[in-house]
Amino acid sequence: MINQLADKIKKLEAPIVVGLDPMLSYIPEQVQKKAFAEFGETLEGAGEAIWQYNKEIVDHTTDLIPAVKPQIAMYEQFGIPGMIAYQRTVEYCKQRGLVVIGDVKRGDIGSTSAAYAAGHLGQVQVGSCRYKVFDEDFATVNPYLGSDGIQPFLEVCKEEKKGVFILVKTSNPSSGEFQDRIIDGRPLYEWVGEKVAEWGVDLMGDSYSYVGAVVGATYPEMGRVLRKLMPKAYILVPGYGAQGGTAKDLAPFFNEDGLGAIVNSSRGIIAAYKQTKYSRFGAEHFGEASRQAVRDMIEDLKTIR
Amino acid sequence: MINQLADKIKKLEAPIVVGLDPMLSYIPEQVQKKAFAEFGETLEGAGEAIWQYNKEIVDHTTDLIPAVKPQIAMYEQFGIPGMIAYQRTVEYCKQRGLVVIGDVKRGDIGSTSAAYAAGHLGQVQVGSCRYKVFDEDFATVNPYLGSDGIQPFLEVCKEEKKGVFILVKTSNPSSGEFQDRIIDGRPLYEWVGEKVAEWGVDLMGDSYSYVGAVVGATYPEMGRVLRKLMPKAYILVPGYGAQGGTAKDLAPFFNEDGLGAIVNSSRGIIAAYKQTKYSRFGAEHFGEASRQAVRDMIEDLKTIR
Repeated sequence: MINQLADKIKKLEAPIVVGLDPMLSYIPEQVQKKAFAEFGETLEGAGEAIWQYNKEIVDHTTDLIPAVKPQIAMYEQFGIPGMIAYQRTVEYCKQRGLVVIGDVKRGDIGSTSAAYAAGHLGQVQVGSCRYKVFDEDFATVNPYLGSDGIQPFLEVCKEEKKGVFILVKTSNPSSGEFQDRIIDGRPLYEWVGEKVAEWGVDLMGDSYSYVGAVVGATYPEMGRVLRKLMPKAYILVPGYGAQGGTAKDLAPFFNEDGLGAIVNSSRGIIAAYKQTKYSRFGAEHFGEASRQAVRDMIEDLKTIR
Repeated sequence: MINQLADKIKKLEAPIVVGLDPMLSYIPEQVQKKAFAEFGETLEGAGEAIWQYNKEIVDHTTDLIPAVKPQIAMYEQFGIPGMIAYQRTVEYCKQRGLVVIGDVKRGDIGSTSAAYAAGHLGQVQVGSCRYKVFDEDFATVNPYLGSDGIQPFLEVCKEEKKGVFILVKTSNPSSGEFQDRIIDGRPLYEWVGEKVAEWGVDLMGDSYSYVGAVVGATYPEMGRVLRKLMPKAYILVPGYGAQGGTAKDLAPFFNEDGLGAIVNSSRGIIAAYKQTKYSRFGAEHFGEASRQAVRDMIEDLKTIR
């Protein structure tokens, strides 16, 4: 899957992933109204609104982008109907040929991590039958519990040729509270980064490992160090756009082959129609606004080469 | 809710929580067969087997225990039907008067953490309506992303009078890989523990804070230090029994008032019927085996006073 991701990025000249984080406040009124007319102002209504919103955005951007990253919290908060919308979104994006990165940030130990890995990337056994469940292509994973929390994911990745992005240095303002603390002369995120490189050794695709890392665009200098520490890890870079990261902040995340990083934008793409810059599209044509925002992001990222 | 939890623990003289982590391999054949007869060897069948299994165990233990801790991974792996079983389990346990600790180990940033907090502990807004969704009483939370990942949970806890248990030192063998690393002369878990105490200051119940911590029974010496660092935090202690922690390892986790810790047992209770010690019950009477295992655990924990 990492080969497919890298190939698509090269072919489309678009090292970007669209974050499908559908907060209800992003969803245009006409989409909400239609969903609520059918299902009421219920969790089912929220699920339907999310799904229709996502579908429109995907339909307008799928030929331009290699991947999407649905943030499961935005679905899970609406309970079962939300999780159904998540599953439909994952399925639909895969049908449309997109690589799907499940932003689930799961992380636990032993058999519990194995259950998450099976449910999101692998297969579960029920009696004599095996099922793929959420079946994302990649998942994000939290490293705080150490190797035995990561190992079950690696086993499933090996079997299914899928991948993970391990949280190394997150994009938020207080990420440094623990991640930047100095241990034997180096910050914690470097130690985690070193482990990411180590975990990835046995899971190599053609040029990159199945084991990637999350490093925020908001910390370019740390990105530079981590890029060298994990030369074979694809870096998933959140924090571009709405969170303040700019194109010039992104250069350090890429390798000399022009690959090795995939930059996420969520609000900046999916709620583009709300920006003055794209207001000409209007809420009615929010999908087209998203398409234009993707085009602009691709152009913006070309300036960093 | 922390007051209710502490009161129930005192009244029942049982500082224990039963981990409802229903791996299919734990579920007696007759329960699986019945579920599969109705729903086939499908995800729905798995969900039904889990739910029936949980119900039987809860029905046999509810008068003896203050709380349960369903591990969401064991449900989530079976997709939507699994999540339905999770939700039914939470609802049923609350109906039966149990405090429910959702072992979800979520952790993200800003609006994403807010979505998890709303969905698990608070309420979500859909149009003009508000809904409680999974509605657990407590949730476990991962601290790797720092304060701005925790803050949205604290806000919801304050509003709903619910609580969180923050991962500080986990029970697994490789938890030390990052958690034990020395920062300015003290291990990372102490720094996290100190933050837990700080986060809890504004969220006090009668004697304990809404903000608790997870510290593994497998690390009693670290438990002793953390107990002092976080005097007002309830400590959720996994790792007793199957993972190797014994009653004498538990003393350091309690305060002098005999409170301040709640010890989890999952497999040791819910799959008790599989142990030689309880084989007299047979798989047919697995609920009674669980009841006896709870009684034995309560007695075992009394030896530490």
